[in-house]
Amino acid sequence: MNARSDIDIHALMLDMGKRARTAARKLALAAPEKKTAALRAAAKAVRESASAILQANAEDISSIQAEKATPAFLDRLSLDAKRIEGIAEAVEVVANLKDPVGDVIASWTRPNGMTIERVRTPLGVIAVIFESRPNVTADAGALAFKAGNAVILRGGSEGFQSSQAIHAAMVRGLKSQGLPSDAIQLVPTRDRAAVGEILTGLNGTIDVVVPRGGKDLVARVEKEARVPVFAHLEGICHVYVHAPADLEMAKKIVLNAKMRRTGVCGSAETLLVDRALAGTHLKPLVEMLIAAGCEIRGDDATRAIDKRVKAATEQDWSTEYLDAIISAKVVNGVQDAIEHIEQYGSHHTDSIVTEDKEAAEKFLNEVDSAIVLHNASTQFADGGEFGFGAEIGISTGRMHARGPVGVEQLTSFKYRVHGAGQTRP
Amino acid sequence: MNARSDIDIHALMLDMGKRARTAARKLALAAPEKKTAALRAAAKAVRESASAILQANAEDISSIQAEKATPAFLDRLSLDAKRIEGIAEAVEVVANLKDPVGDVIASWTRPNGMTIERVRTPLGVIAVIFESRPNVTADAGALAFKAGNAVILRGGSEGFQSSQAIHAAMVRGLKSQGLPSDAIQLVPTRDRAAVGEILTGLNGTIDVVVPRGGKDLVARVEKEARVPVFAHLEGICHVYVHAPADLEMAKKIVLNAKMRRTGVCGSAETLLVDRALAGTHLKPLVEMLIAAGCEIRGDDATRAIDKRVKAATEQDWSTEYLDAIISAKVVNGVQDAIEHIEQYGSHHTDSIVTEDKEAAEKFLNEVDSAIVLHNASTQFADGGEFGFGAEIGISTGRMHARGPVGVEQLTSFKYRVHGAGQTRP
Repeated sequence: MNARSDIDIHALMLDMGKRARTAARKLALAAPEKKTAALRAAAKAVRESASAILQANAEDISSIQAEKATPAFLDRLSLDAKRIEGIAEAVEVVANLKDPVGDVIASWTRPNGMTIERVRTPLGVIAVIFESRPNVTADAGALAFKAGNAVILRGGSEGFQSSQAIHAAMVRGLKSQGLPSDAIQLVPTRDRAAVGEILTGLNGTIDVVVPRGGKDLVARVEKEARVPVFAHLEGICHVYVHAPADLEMAKKIVLNAKMRRTGVCGSAETLLVDRALAGTHLKPLVEMLIAAGCEIRGDDATRAIDKRVKAATEQDWSTEYLDAIISAKVVNGVQDAIEHIEQYGSHHTDSIVTEDKEAAEKFLNEVDSAIVLHNASTQFADGGEFGFGAEIGISTGRMHARGPVGVEQLTSFKYRVHGAGQTRP
Repeated sequence: MNARSDIDIHALMLDMGKRARTAARKLALAAPEKKTAALRAAAKAVRESASAILQANAEDISSIQAEKATPAFLDRLSLDAKRIEGIAEAVEVVANLKDPVGDVIASWTRPNGMTIERVRTPLGVIAVIFESRPNVTADAGALAFKAGNAVILRGGSEGFQSSQAIHAAMVRGLKSQGLPSDAIQLVPTRDRAAVGEILTGLNGTIDVVVPRGGKDLVARVEKEARVPVFAHLEGICHVYVHAPADLEMAKKIVLNAKMRRTGVCGSAETLLVDRALAGTHLKPLVEMLIAAGCEIRGDDATRAIDKRVKAATEQDWSTEYLDAIISAKVVNGVQDAIEHIEQYGSHHTDSIVTEDKEAAEKFLNEVDSAIVLHNASTQFADGGEFGFGAEIGISTGRMHARGPVGVEQLTSFKYRVHGAGQTRP
């Protein structure tokens, strides 16, 4: 990279930010029906562009370096007709969501007769930095757009051509309704310097950054970003089986929380079981998990139950396996479980299984995580499962957005005051 | 300042952050009645400490450097018996506010029977950096505390002794209810390096910084902070008189918006008047303002009305006078007014005066400010006037808190999910 190229990227990105801000102003005032129609047209354009998208995707795949081409990586990157249909359908789902902009969240009248309304507005400009999955171009673009925001997308270099082809289709949708094509922009270069530029906030034109990808990406964004970030670094989620828990329910929930999909952020990484249940519940839970192909790394009390349980190290309690591995520990009641979760957890999603309502209430109140569940699987940590229709990610931050980040979380608000000549005494 | 002192401040501040985080965990679970009782006891302790506080204040005042001792500065710093009573009463007002923690903001049931609740939780640890007014020690401490947060206060060095005396009284209130005294901490040194430390976030222990003071302080915090900031840099507020506006109402609102108090952030700095009203409304408005002692800096059209109007420069449109000065401009209708406000305003508070509901609606929708008013004075930009009871400041940011930042805006939320054994398909 030479100095000349640096200057170009800097200017290019500042220009993108400026254009995004201008588009955001226009989009904030766009009629809901226009936004909906534009997204429907974008979905249609994605379908019509299927062959162009597949061709771009084939080019991306053919140029991957051999050492990167693991099966998991190729699976994330590859598109086929069914996946393209899935992309179009996801855009339609977002198109059909209720438009949040203009919603009156609260309103009240003051003693002097003024009425104050708290009204949803778009956030402004959202930057999404993602890795290999080309569908994020459409998903994240559509969701940010639905909430009236302009979005700057920066995809991984391996999916560059695929993202460009999908982006071109999305822009056709916007144009069909006369909406600014700058509302969904894709960084038109593979140069990694673009990420650093985005993280500076592009001269104040970016309101929030959403990293979508692995831990390295999220860690870098959280460390370097000069603007707010919606993200979670990891999901070290717990299932705590409290006496008295229904054994069948505990088995169902633990199996689902760990094994339904092991690679998602809401999958359980640690099983906590009350000492009082060591004889009755822990053994069948351990046997069930091992039978399902799950490796268990336990404390001494768990290992005493079943010799196939490996010894957990201190590091296991704070490890996000994202694999068919779970750490397991015997605890002395709900307070002990809460303390373990506070010490080792990541404030993402944690569940208690119990028939004791008081203990459940204590757990839900005192575990300081974005999502706390009673008698349900941690794998419900997902905007779709919350009824948000779609999400751009899950946030473990405490400011603005926490938990699944759906269309409403991509909005801000303002106060509208209706008076009749009131002046302040 | 030598290296040794640097190290001490660094360690001191990190320790404060750590203790704040521990206190925040405890305070998040404190019973509402305990917090209320602690604040009432703190108010009582402030009253009982009146003579100690006055003595500390006298010491502060006697050690001010002569060149700093302007009347305005001395007024901000000085306490007397009445002001101490005002501090105690303000703490009682906060004590009596509704406790926001645990409020169920929303709840819904999913098709699978799970009930999801969105529940308010404290934000965590709030740092407040302020200048000379010692009452902020009590005000900001009480408000952050009421919302279940720990707070780290850093006051200006000129009010150091006064703040310490007030802080000591506040802590007595907390202790009387067995609540952690680290919930309200005051930086125990005048060393300015403490501010830099706070802005780094103290190892992730600070969730948000609130600067309370002049533009230099806010600008520094916004520039250097590695954590979110609730603040406004300036309040360039507009009153736009649109045809057809009621002249008497326009006069009342313009006079109040500009002259009630000229030094507050919600005071109007620019008057915009429709060209159609130049003959009927602009002249009486200009005459009224001049008669009230206000200097007017206008465009040519305004100067044509009255020779006493000075010529506005380009810079006047983006100047926050905080004084009896207003810039004035003739515009060509609501769209022109909105564009002026977007170009020169600070997204704080703007008002339209008109009898035309459609124009008012357009203005309220399209002006992208935290507070937009119709037929009411911009000086209502205040948490108390919004019915929030108290505020820690006004935010022009678009994330999390916008407009007056009251007790509810100092909270976060989490999702509590109540299931009956649901697993994810």
